[in-house]
Amino acid sequence: MSYSKIHINPISPEPTVGSVLVIYTGGTLGMVYEAKGKQLVPFNFNQIIDRVPEISRLNFDITFLSLSEPIDSSNVNPDIWIELATIIEQEYAGYDSFVILHGTDTMAYTASALSFLLENLNKPVILTGAQLPIGVARSDARENVITALELAAAKNEEGQPIISEVCIYFNSLLLRGNRSKKRESSDFNAFHSENYPALANAGVRIEYNLPYIKPHDSDQRLTIHKNMDNRVAFLKMFPGISQLVVDSILNISGLRGIVLETYGAGNATTAQWFLDAISNAIEKNIIIFNVSQCDGGRVAQGHYETSRFLKQAGVVSGSDITAEAAITKMMYVFGKETDPHKCAEMLSQPLRGEMSV
Amino acid sequence: MSYSKIHINPISPEPTVGSVLVIYTGGTLGMVYEAKGKQLVPFNFNQIIDRVPEISRLNFDITFLSLSEPIDSSNVNPDIWIELATIIEQEYAGYDSFVILHGTDTMAYTASALSFLLENLNKPVILTGAQLPIGVARSDARENVITALELAAAKNEEGQPIISEVCIYFNSLLLRGNRSKKRESSDFNAFHSENYPALANAGVRIEYNLPYIKPHDSDQRLTIHKNMDNRVAFLKMFPGISQLVVDSILNISGLRGIVLETYGAGNATTAQWFLDAISNAIEKNIIIFNVSQCDGGRVAQGHYETSRFLKQAGVVSGSDITAEAAITKMMYVFGKETDPHKCAEMLSQPLRGEMSV
Amino acid sequence: MSYSKIHINPISPEPTVGSVLVIYTGGTLGMVYEAKGKQLVPFNFNQIIDRVPEISRLNFDITFLSLSEPIDSSNVNPDIWIELATIIEQEYAGYDSFVILHGTDTMAYTASALSFLLENLNKPVILTGAQLPIGVARSDARENVITALELAAAKNEEGQPIISEVCIYFNSLLLRGNRSKKRESSDFNAFHSENYPALANAGVRIEYNLPYIKPHDSDQRLTIHKNMDNRVAFLKMFPGISQLVVDSILNISGLRGIVLETYGAGNATTAQWFLDAISNAIEKNIIIFNVSQCDGGRVAQGHYETSRFLKQAGVVSGSDITAEAAITKMMYVFGKETDPHKCAEMLSQPLRGEMSV
Amino acid sequence: MSYSKIHINPISPEPTVGSVLVIYTGGTLGMVYEAKGKQLVPFNFNQIIDRVPEISRLNFDITFLSLSEPIDSSNVNPDIWIELATIIEQEYAGYDSFVILHGTDTMAYTASALSFLLENLNKPVILTGAQLPIGVARSDARENVITALELAAAKNEEGQPIISEVCIYFNSLLLRGNRSKKRESSDFNAFHSENYPALANAGVRIEYNLPYIKPHDSDQRLTIHKNMDNRVAFLKMFPGISQLVVDSILNISGLRGIVLETYGAGNATTAQWFLDAISNAIEKNIIIFNVSQCDGGRVAQGHYETSRFLKQAGVVSGSDITAEAAITKMMYVFGKETDPHKCAEMLSQPLRGEMSV
Repeated sequence: MSYSKIHINPISPEPTVGSVLVIYTGGTLGMVYEAKGKQLVPFNFNQIIDRVPEISRLNFDITFLSLSEPIDSSNVNPDIWIELATIIEQEYAGYDSFVILHGTDTMAYTASALSFLLENLNKPVILTGAQLPIGVARSDARENVITALELAAAKNEEGQPIISEVCIYFNSLLLRGNRSKKRESSDFNAFHSENYPALANAGVRIEYNLPYIKPHDSDQRLTIHKNMDNRVAFLKMFPGISQLVVDSILNISGLRGIVLETYGAGNATTAQWFLDAISNAIEKNIIIFNVSQCDGGRVAQGHYETSRFLKQAGVVSGSDITAEAAITKMMYVFGKETDPHKCAEMLSQPLRGEMSV
Repeated sequence: MSYSKIHINPISPEPTVGSVLVIYTGGTLGMVYEAKGKQLVPFNFNQIIDRVPEISRLNFDITFLSLSEPIDSSNVNPDIWIELATIIEQEYAGYDSFVILHGTDTMAYTASALSFLLENLNKPVILTGAQLPIGVARSDARENVITALELAAAKNEEGQPIISEVCIYFNSLLLRGNRSKKRESSDFNAFHSENYPALANAGVRIEYNLPYIKPHDSDQRLTIHKNMDNRVAFLKMFPGISQLVVDSILNISGLRGIVLETYGAGNATTAQWFLDAISNAIEKNIIIFNVSQCDGGRVAQGHYETSRFLKQAGVVSGSDITAEAAITKMMYVFGKETDPHKCAEMLSQPLRGEMSV
Repeated sequence: MSYSKIHINPISPEPTVGSVLVIYTGGTLGMVYEAKGKQLVPFNFNQIIDRVPEISRLNFDITFLSLSEPIDSSNVNPDIWIELATIIEQEYAGYDSFVILHGTDTMAYTASALSFLLENLNKPVILTGAQLPIGVARSDARENVITALELAAAKNEEGQPIISEVCIYFNSLLLRGNRSKKRESSDFNAFHSENYPALANAGVRIEYNLPYIKPHDSDQRLTIHKNMDNRVAFLKMFPGISQLVVDSILNISGLRGIVLETYGAGNATTAQWFLDAISNAIEKNIIIFNVSQCDGGRVAQGHYETSRFLKQAGVVSGSDITAEAAITKMMYVFGKETDPHKCAEMLSQPLRGEMSV
Repeated sequence: MSYSKIHINPISPEPTVGSVLVIYTGGTLGMVYEAKGKQLVPFNFNQIIDRVPEISRLNFDITFLSLSEPIDSSNVNPDIWIELATIIEQEYAGYDSFVILHGTDTMAYTASALSFLLENLNKPVILTGAQLPIGVARSDARENVITALELAAAKNEEGQPIISEVCIYFNSLLLRGNRSKKRESSDFNAFHSENYPALANAGVRIEYNLPYIKPHDSDQRLTIHKNMDNRVAFLKMFPGISQLVVDSILNISGLRGIVLETYGAGNATTAQWFLDAISNAIEKNIIIFNVSQCDGGRVAQGHYETSRFLKQAGVVSGSDITAEAAITKMMYVFGKETDPHKCAEMLSQPLRGEMSV
């Protein structure tokens, strides 16, 4: 693939201190009003400096790259994730850091997926976007983009990047990508990470929460994965769920795994038909990954009777993983491994800081 | 059905000012340690005053009623909801208010379901529970139970109950039941209502948020519904979801409705196969109820291209309803109506304050 | 006084729906970088459209007026407040609404003071500012200014302004001005109103909290007050405070009143020397206004022994007023009334929604 | 001094794993209803097991010690702090940890003071209390006391205490004592630490925030200080503050230091009379300690013109210290040192983690 790139000439009086590749995928952020009209149309990246003139005052090199066909994030899929991983692979040597402009709707899924696809990442990959298009007067786009750029360019006193992982920056908060969730569809304060502290808070200064940021390790070598297997589904528990519904989902042809959205600390009904359905699925090598419907806290299988049987049946505990990270981790693991025992083992361990042990 | 009841003799020096029926369903709250041992066993309600002696100082009449077989809330189902509704029907004339002790895992589902089953409710029905058993030293059970009792007994200056709806009280907050969600599986601050303000905050005083509480209307006559139809399921969108998964769920035999968990403000992929699948389902009179994966904000079908087609296909917008209220509302509506157009109409309107217009 | 004004020609294709007078007082917001350099210099309002081009797309008339000498908000004083009140008096008939650009440091004091000086206000007066100068790339200035303008211009279906009071808009929240406090000196989320709900939340849409907004009353006629008496001081309690400190403050020559910053629900030491000092001051017609050091909750004099004596001595309870509103209210009341009993009476009652009864 | 002690015989079937000395000072927590009546009277500690029977199930040794004369926390003063420090000195060898029951009103002052008086502390000292008396039905006292005891007894895998500093535990949160502030006078969630993360969160489990807890160092030897000098006062800035008020406070006879409560990041008026007053005071060896009126963020003297002059005049920056820690630190430093330069140096550095560098 080849992509058109635009390089921004910085006009800052200070020398540039690094380089950022900005990858535009589409989404709400990149919409502006037509010259004469009320219609929102996709952003033309040639005009970016017109819209956000502050960018040219930043003291680092910025290059824009746009996906050949920008898409609304509701249409994102594993192919896009692999395309993004591939771009980062190709451009990894050429840039100090990466910012991905992405629609908010599936940003937490994409950030989770990229965290798995980019193994041993040692440079910042920061996703951001906006709740209102950059062409709307009171948009949050400008602030989000500029701060994401500054975070991507930030280095410590040894000249190493402060961030070496896939993150989401949104509305003052830098969050670990695979810990994030879009919690609000209307507030500017849209993203949240309930089970892991924010990595940085951007106000008058940017305050980093260093003990919780993945340390930089210059010996690591990036490994890119390019395979995801989507033979997976969610099965969400609710009181009254019927045997027919459970059986229909567990018997989907070719299914390799289920993210089971349980109650509280990983609980589900102890009705015999449900236990049998789960046990039968596991016997057929379908992996059941237990994730809580609650944003906060963690699955503790075995604590109560209502989760003990899940543990005994071989259900894999998702600990405090998000649903978004769980389903993308499953696609990644299934794309890498075929042996169900190895898959279960990988799912049960944190691979990229996505869950607590 | 007949249930054993225990009446608490208040020792408060003040005259009693009302009566509360406490219905015990089971759950974490009602566990105590064996006399000599480390094992948690279900609560014997004869001993309640031993455990919470403060109860006998409250200046209202309290009667305890226990379900014949207390159950863990992960095993709650529509039969239990109808049993609870029936108890309230039978006891409605005899008590001023009702407190239901319930496990936290499905409390938001039960509160939502009861709000639909109890039409024209005019007395408080307050659910509460605990994250730690009453027999554990630092349990939240005691505080939750006592405050729920005080809220149930609270009257305004005209002697009317301040609360006339189904609520959840938990950790200082009184929430509208069908707006609530268990957000935390570990914190005491477990329940949250993202799209509707708390109805009261209990601190040194209890502060009521009167503009947001359903007004008492003494002309209303309670109508109990006793039918729920569980031919329903969740279908949660995720990037990479396959046609096979979607088709398998939409073709579950006998299915009457789906709660479609979409992105952001009600968006989903615009892939042609998905549009076709949704359209075909609707043609077969399956109702698709669009609810956001985000806790906050609301479905605004038609705002973006990625939700416009859903509207055109006849998907019903869930506005800012919770997933818990959506699935229970669907079971209630299907239990009451067979005509799909009437069902869709009922789903699209707030019936008990569960969604905004 | 005469002020230079700049009128913005809107380029919006829609007809304009109202008019806003923007009054610039100085502060962090209005700083930009010199053309070639790193120094921040005050904003030239002729260039405003260069900096915030979105303003010209808003569909209402905007006029800018700058104080003859813009000042840092740390230098704001009652003369400035009276100047602002006078400008609003002079321009009241000519504009539908007013936005005041103000430094954040004393914005809550100014908003409180203006709420008292502008009696029977019937148009929006919205203060805003920024934590970072408009000339800094990731400034919050742009978003705050634009949204404050939109809030000022907002009308209901009857064509009346939705807001008819003095407010602060900052970082998505519209707050009642005399309920606000600058809580954060570094976060963008700088202002907070602990004892009164936010009046609006600006996200993808602007959501108004109508039950808590002062209703518009077209029969009200604006009355401007132009006198404030600053013979007032704070006296903050702390364990170990000496009689000498208390006496020195209460005996300041000419002093008319003290805002006594007490503990919790209005408590102070019951040491005899302290009771005597307070009683003596009250006998000398010094008014003691009891305000809590806690942001949340309210003074409840008489609840505990440690506040009962304050009530008996004639200390005026500040209920849940902020320190900022208390000190400005005292200056306003003393500027209007000389009789200490009338002053005490006015202080004890809500005049502009600044405290709860 | 001698104090009466009561030892609780644990009935837990497990062997005890440590010992806690509980020091009762008075306060809201320790009030119960009279046997027949409505009056709240102080707690009789002989009856503690009657009120909180769960205590005897904890598997560690608990001894209660009551101050000879329990006092309301509004009457706490430096003598009490020195008495508490002395008790801890005398009992340090005999117990593994200390819990202090204290009124909420001045708890943050006492926790700050004790943090300075107890140098090289190596055992937990945890203050707690309640918003409602233990004798009120829905009191928060029980939960706070029990969890404080569990936190005090908590040890890591090496058998060392997890906590080795002075803390406040309140309503699920363990906070560093000299970072705490009573923010709410009515909510159970009363204490807050705006500039430092919570050290632990108590829910179903107790989750420790290990990177932010002071590490245990078994080589440290406790040093107790027993001198505090209260020739200090607060001077809170407000727009309109008069020269007379400032001069009167700065000229209090014998005054050694002032906590100057400034705006935002440490700003004050640049009026010449104010600059002169501050400079004159400093020349007279009065120390001016600059603390922000904002809860969050920190003093950054010199960032703006309005704080630059304070720095030049020799004002000491309080960084992100609370007002409570600032005034008690000043009393401690003045009790220890007479040389103003040494005092200023000590004030400008973190001594017990009370401020950031």
